[in-house]
Order: sequence, then structure tokens, then C-alpha cells
Amino acid sequence: MDALPALTSTRPYLIRAMHEWCSDNGFTPYISVLVDKNTLVPIEHVKDNEIILNISIDATSGLQIGNEFVQFKSRFSGVVRDLMIPINNVQAIFAKENGQGMSFPKVTVMEGSVAQTDDTSKANASPPSAGANEASKRTRSHLTIVK
Amino acid sequence: MDALPALTSTRPYLIRAMHEWCSDNGFTPYISVLVDKNTLVPIEHVKDNEIILNISIDATSGLQIGNEFVQFKSRFSGVVRDLMIPINNVQAIFAKENGQGMSFPKVTVMEGSVAQTDDTSKANASPPSAGANEASKRTRSHLTIVK
Repeated sequence: MDALPALTSTRPYLIRAMHEWCSDNGFTPYISVLVDKNTLVPIEHVKDNEIILNISIDATSGLQIGNEFVQFKSRFSGVVRDLMIPINNVQAIFAKENGQGMSFPKVTVMEGSVAQTDDTSKANASPPSAGANEASKRTRSHLTIVK
Repeated sequence: MDALPALTSTRPYLIRAMHEWCSDNGFTPYISVLVDKNTLVPIEHVKDNEIILNISIDATSGLQIGNEFVQFKSRFSGVVRDLMIPINNVQAIFAKENGQGMSFPKVTVMEGSVAQTDDTSKANASPPSAGANEASKRTRSHLTIVK
């Protein structure tokens, strides 16, 4: 894969898929976001470098789940705020109602290089994932079991 | 989840997502199909109850990845054939070029009940997945780590 730096991450495709699945089933899609200098989120709602956000159509306006960023406007304590989240800062997407969803491994951006999965880290998803140590397994096929 | 029989599986959403990812990156999406009495596939290409199919736009016509079935026409030895595959018979979707993709656990249909994941089985994906034993782990959250 190192020879293909232009390769798009599967992450935005899977986030869009799970968002659509939640919406079609009447569930509320929540994302867990790793907050750092690259995220634009209401800092007063961040806890332990993480924020959980409702990205349902009803709770947002102008929602765009692009290949690089998740962007939307949302209301916090009555005030509309702009949010912008790099796709690799999305740690998980899950249904508020039953917790079903998908979590993603932490990505470390190497200087002068494309983003790489950080094999030493485990995803810090909320709710916690039993499959977190899957992130440290690397196989040629990169196949991942999902429900 | 047992109280929500109308719940749609995430599987078709994820298959569509990976198909789109493959297409956007110039990869050829292949699916591994568990062949049984419910699948309509060219039986002469089945090996060990499995068939690997190219579902790229170029190799198919009329491709539909619906919530219940994958349907398309494709040419085998010069002859156009109709294929119809229940979504739960799709064991994996991956890029021909590098094997990156996603595999799914085996589903057993219980009499008079909704489809259930068969915890005693492991997905028989091709190429083999290092994460196959994830299928046997059940957590409340159903979160799954993906690359």
C-alpha cells in the first residue's frame, strides 16, 4: 500500500454507510471524535480529548461527510456553531439507541508522508469495542469481519 | 436486538460502501459468495461451495446491490448469465488488486425467526481474514474496528 499514496481511506465510505444505515432504521447516528488542534468543535463539551456528537439530519444543518472532513452546523446551548472534523479524527460511529456501529483505529500523520495507521494505539471508541486489538493486526488482505 | 426484527442489516450498506471505494480508487471489486440453494450463480465455477465474482461496473450490467439481494448480469465463457445472491450469502468484498476489503460472519436463518449470526461459524472469506474470530465475539455495542 505504501506505493499508492493517492489511495483513499475506506473510513469516509464506511462512515457514510453507517450514517445511512442509522437514518434508514430510525436511529440517531453519533460520532466519537478525537479532539486535537485540527478539530473545530465546541471545546466546552470536550472530555478527555473526546467529544460525542449527534450527526443526524435533524440535529445538524449542512452536513457533509466528505473524504477529508465531516462538516456541519449544530446547536449547543441554543447557539449555532460550525464544526469541522478531519475524517481521521472520527474514532467511531454508532447508533445512540443500541450502540451498534463501527470504530476505527487511531491514525498518526507522519511528517512528509501519507497518514499511517498507528499500530501501537488502540481506538478509544465510546462505547468501548471488544475488537479494539484488531487494530494492531496487519494482514496482507486487510479484511475485517463485521456484523 | 432480538426485540427489533425489522432492523436492516448493516451488510448491504457496507458492501455498497466498499464497492464505491473500489470504483473510486480504480480497483476491481470482487465478492466471495457462499453458494447454496438460494443463490443463482454459474454452478460450473463454484468450488467448495464458494464462488468469487467480479462485480465491477465494467464486468456487469444492471448491477443492483439492494438490502436483500445482489443482482446483475455477467458474461461467463462468452455467455451472459443472470446472477442473484441473497445479501447474507456475500461473505466478503475486496479489491482484486490488493485484497483490501471486508468480510462478514456467516448468517444462519432460524425457522420462523429473523436471521441470526451463527456464533459457532467463522467467515470463510477468500483471501482468508486474520480477523475471522471476531465473528464469535459478542458485545453490547457491536462496534467493529476497521482500517
